[in-house]
Amino acid sequence: MISEEMRQLLATGSEIRTMWERSFELKRIHGAENVADMTLGNPFAPPPEGVLKALEELVANPPPDLHRYTPNAGIPEVRQLIAAHLHDHGLLPGAQRHHVVVTAGASGATNIVLRAVLDPGDEVVLLSPFFPDYPAHVLNQHGVPVVVPTTPDFLPDLAAIEEALGPRTRLLIINHPNNPSGRLYPQWLLRDLVEIIRKQSRKNGRIIYLLSDEPYREICFTSEPFTSPAKLYEHGLMTYSFSKSKSIPGERIGYLALNPESPAATELAKAFALANRILGFTSAPSLWQHVIARSLDAVIDIEPLRRHRDCLLEALENKGYEVIPPDGTFYLFPRTPGGDDVAFVSRAMESLLLVAPGSTFGHPGHFRMAFCVDQRTVDLAVERLPPARQ
Amino acid sequence: MISEEMRQLLATGSEIRTMWERSFELKRIHGAENVADMTLGNPFAPPPEGVLKALEELVANPPPDLHRYTPNAGIPEVRQLIAAHLHDHGLLPGAQRHHVVVTAGASGATNIVLRAVLDPGDEVVLLSPFFPDYPAHVLNQHGVPVVVPTTPDFLPDLAAIEEALGPRTRLLIINHPNNPSGRLYPQWLLRDLVEIIRKQSRKNGRIIYLLSDEPYREICFTSEPFTSPAKLYEHGLMTYSFSKSKSIPGERIGYLALNPESPAATELAKAFALANRILGFTSAPSLWQHVIARSLDAVIDIEPLRRHRDCLLEALENKGYEVIPPDGTFYLFPRTPGGDDVAFVSRAMESLLLVAPGSTFGHPGHFRMAFCVDQRTVDLAVERLPPARQ
Repeated sequence: MISEEMRQLLATGSEIRTMWERSFELKRIHGAENVADMTLGNPFAPPPEGVLKALEELVANPPPDLHRYTPNAGIPEVRQLIAAHLHDHGLLPGAQRHHVVVTAGASGATNIVLRAVLDPGDEVVLLSPFFPDYPAHVLNQHGVPVVVPTTPDFLPDLAAIEEALGPRTRLLIINHPNNPSGRLYPQWLLRDLVEIIRKQSRKNGRIIYLLSDEPYREICFTSEPFTSPAKLYEHGLMTYSFSKSKSIPGERIGYLALNPESPAATELAKAFALANRILGFTSAPSLWQHVIARSLDAVIDIEPLRRHRDCLLEALENKGYEVIPPDGTFYLFPRTPGGDDVAFVSRAMESLLLVAPGSTFGHPGHFRMAFCVDQRTVDLAVERLPPARQ
Repeated sequence: MISEEMRQLLATGSEIRTMWERSFELKRIHGAENVADMTLGNPFAPPPEGVLKALEELVANPPPDLHRYTPNAGIPEVRQLIAAHLHDHGLLPGAQRHHVVVTAGASGATNIVLRAVLDPGDEVVLLSPFFPDYPAHVLNQHGVPVVVPTTPDFLPDLAAIEEALGPRTRLLIINHPNNPSGRLYPQWLLRDLVEIIRKQSRKNGRIIYLLSDEPYREICFTSEPFTSPAKLYEHGLMTYSFSKSKSIPGERIGYLALNPESPAATELAKAFALANRILGFTSAPSLWQHVIARSLDAVIDIEPLRRHRDCLLEALENKGYEVIPPDGTFYLFPRTPGGDDVAFVSRAMESLLLVAPGSTFGHPGHFRMAFCVDQRTVDLAVERLPPARQ
């Protein structure tokens, strides 16, 4: 009595869900404190002082209309502040608030972009490994997901992408830095990627948008400056969430921005605002629009994450795992010994280490460890991690 | 460079948008304080003390995990409290939290229900006048809206509904009490409606769900107890928003509930939680889940609204308008003199009275006045309202 597509989506996740249920059972039996849970990207760190202070001040001295409807695209002053903030950080928009729409997080923003630009049956190219909900986002918005695997070191495979960009392609989504691989793409590669998109757009006579999903932008361990591909391409779009950088994933606040040089900027901005309304978001939560506007520069301290990363990398290498050090995010994505990621994850679970199988990310043969946890959990994980060679 | 459907949706609203822009111009020329703006259901009343107090306490003494991810269906304790609250008020659920999913308002909830139950091309019956975004919600979720006008006194036209419920019908949406007509449906009528749905379901060999959208449930001026049609039918569903009853429309918090006697209750609840995630809501905002759980019984004082309603009804009748007194909501939906609602609304605008044309609600020949405003605006509106006969 539910739709056929929902039935399939529920069935796809059922293996993971069974594991999830088993993990609750194990926590009950052995005590949650004895299980190293690295399944979710749910940051352990508290929100930065600036965020908590802004929230306290707003609640203590509420401006008029604090809890009333805001325009669908967001409070004009908040959009303006985000546009200026992006510009100040060399990340695009600028003086015009119209190039920013405040959203309920990056997932909300992604659905809005897709709703605005996809005609039924349009193709959306995804690079695996990908954020697990992308394919469903595309299906929601009447599109067809086309998956292109990355190279063995998780960089975009330009030749394969060129091949995949056909006459029905409307959009390519990249997640930068990437969840789960942690890879940041070098600027030369992004430039080449944009050139390929331009070339295929011309060849097919149809604009292909490039959407860069950047919730982990501030969580980078390299010294190179971050480049948003949306900046390199007039049809570039950017989605962002404050969930990770401000440790407020439960509050559902983020934005989308477009390259102001887009010849369709005005039409796109109107379509995004309308999509925000009709998809049922109406707008991003009002109180949180105010909070982030007053704390745009407040970002969590990433040093504890860097220590977790280094500590786990060492343990993985010592125990014989193949792993590419992540440039950013709070994930590691090692190869699974033996190849079968679901079997490996089940075995690790019985050793009281909870990790996510690569299949969830469209990329079997790997597993993801989320290290946005406390030091105790990292220590426990190091202990529980089975040797890769037995 | 946006999709064809978005282009059409933007074009549909363009007349209204032009009026909307003109209204800003008029406010600039004449001063906003001289314009009686009754276009939006954006409550003027502050949130009840209980809501503000719960918010202050949570921010002052945050429980652990206050801003972290919650389960997609909502915080278990919050779902449980809502289920118990509904049961205590004779409105359904009961002991099981699984029959409630916390959502980003009623519009979010409606999209979730549609995503969960519609196969592409399935029909959804709407009764006009309707909440303006319903048709887009249906289109979003791959369905086909089928509009059935209500009777001249805005009650469901049972014969016409029976005719409209065909083999592709999956759902009927009612808004109870109705925005914009303010009508509350008598219990006998709801029972007859459910019988017709049952009969057509049997005839067509396919379950037809009944969704009752109830954000105005607490804003009723009659003495009869409120009946949720979701209670009268095992395939009944309910969507609810705290926007109106707690005057927090900007914060995006509500829920959906299902009749626990549904033979598909477990499957539906799973599909709703998954739909909440993949549509990009992820979950309802965490802080607001906590706030409403601590203030479920806090509701705005409706006496000022009752006074506004009575005052405007008197003015409308004195000036020769035909209007059916609303049983609930904070809207009046009079007939437009001359019949052309868009022309009437434009004329009223030049007299500095802003109202919404019935066409927006799929029901031309009427206009909507939102009286969730302050007394000054009501007085101004009474003054500005042109006589119906000239």
